[in-house]
Amino acid sequence: MLPTVAAVRERLSGEPSVAFVPTMGNLHEGHLELVRLAARRAPCVVASIFVNRLQFAPHEDFDRYPRTFQEDCARLEELGVAAVFAPDEPELYPSPQEVLVEPPPLGNILEGEHRPGFFRGVATVVLKLFNIVQPRYAVFGKKDYQQLLVVREMVRQLNLPIEIVAGETCRDSDGLALSSRNKYLNSAERREAPRLYSTLVWLKKELESGNQDYRGLEKAARSNLDKSGWSVDYVALQQQATLGLAQQGDRALVALGAARLGATRLIDNVEVFLGT
Amino acid sequence: MLPTVAAVRERLSGEPSVAFVPTMGNLHEGHLELVRLAARRAPCVVASIFVNRLQFAPHEDFDRYPRTFQEDCARLEELGVAAVFAPDEPELYPSPQEVLVEPPPLGNILEGEHRPGFFRGVATVVLKLFNIVQPRYAVFGKKDYQQLLVVREMVRQLNLPIEIVAGETCRDSDGLALSSRNKYLNSAERREAPRLYSTLVWLKKELESGNQDYRGLEKAARSNLDKSGWSVDYVALQQQATLGLAQQGDRALVALGAARLGATRLIDNVEVFLGT
Repeated sequence: MLPTVAAVRERLSGEPSVAFVPTMGNLHEGHLELVRLAARRAPCVVASIFVNRLQFAPHEDFDRYPRTFQEDCARLEELGVAAVFAPDEPELYPSPQEVLVEPPPLGNILEGEHRPGFFRGVATVVLKLFNIVQPRYAVFGKKDYQQLLVVREMVRQLNLPIEIVAGETCRDSDGLALSSRNKYLNSAERREAPRLYSTLVWLKKELESGNQDYRGLEKAARSNLDKSGWSVDYVALQQQATLGLAQQGDRALVALGAARLGATRLIDNVEVFLGT
Repeated sequence: MLPTVAAVRERLSGEPSVAFVPTMGNLHEGHLELVRLAARRAPCVVASIFVNRLQFAPHEDFDRYPRTFQEDCARLEELGVAAVFAPDEPELYPSPQEVLVEPPPLGNILEGEHRPGFFRGVATVVLKLFNIVQPRYAVFGKKDYQQLLVVREMVRQLNLPIEIVAGETCRDSDGLALSSRNKYLNSAERREAPRLYSTLVWLKKELESGNQDYRGLEKAARSNLDKSGWSVDYVALQQQATLGLAQQGDRALVALGAARLGATRLIDNVEVFLGT
């Protein structure tokens, strides 16, 4: 485990091609799949573990976010990563972070609307980590679909020499997307939790069967969650590449949802490809 | 001359240490000194020529900014630079630049106050150029003192693996700091122009002789320019490292001035080191 920027730079000096997996720790099978995906791109895989305060609002779960550092390191070691960068806060933020990355407009909707400042915090820490690790590839999960697009757009607009690789969402057998925040669910909530995914899958099937009433579908999906006790932030049908509002004729769509079950906020999404 | 990002990446691939001099072209002896300084840091010197619209306000002089591309390339070639990156606007901004770098607070005063958005435009394009050229060293002139500090702070806070090297201001024999904008001056204005520097030098001498009435000195300097027909944006005594307001007891100061002579806005500065 490398705790400092200097140690990472020294370890990676001369590495011709690094594949990087940034995480907030509390690793589950979804993260491990990202690491395996990284290993297929470059022989030298670097993971980072850092719970980034900058992307949490004051009322959010920064303090109780699950931390399982020893287990995380053991699992990463088993997978053969070359290095784990795990800085403490003073190492990454020796002074208040004032130089910030303003994310592209696609970061203003959905998560950006419900978590103001979230993508600015994400973009800023990801850029810092990129500058420290200087990877050729960086792997992000599709579970955080909008984050993936924000990072891709940042890389493109800032001319970073990095290819962003997208990893598929891993799910439990009942469909629930793996997430560190699933640990917050009590057993009743855990039984209810797969409804977010099943609602998005229902939406996908409706679309595939020719239903083009996008706004009506969003409304029906939302009400399906509402009536089961969820507090819905959004259910939205968007274009895959830009997250623009889905319009008639669009082929590559994504259905995204964010909703709270008790105190726990879950997000998920399902890609939809419509034929001609 | 390399017009594309791809050509720069290809040319510099495998270069172990690049020293970079970003410019807006219209090169004068000041720029050439920065190139010579770069050559003392690394065998491979790269210069860029790009007039960056993003750092000009709509009413400013983007369109009439002097462009002397052929001469610039010839002079850089004479100095033995390895490559000149000279992209056109669609190459650097293929779509509107929406991912922006928010500069540190020291960019909000002085130039930042009088040219809103200037340092955001500078920081953003400099970061893009850094990501394209990936230098080990980058050279900036002290003539743009605040810009130098903004870039340094950006590098520090974004963990860029780049050392920022500062080049001294070059001056004509009468003291006027070399600047592309000097070309805008008519002959009467050109004769008057050295007063900006001589006023800052007077300020420095007052300080060195023990005058500690910082705000009084600023006022006197400003009025000296006012009464000679200048329209003064600011004359300010600040701390060198942070550009914080100079206070009694500070040793490393910088006197900065910005003022308009007719339609031409000139800036200059003088460092002051006070003994114990």
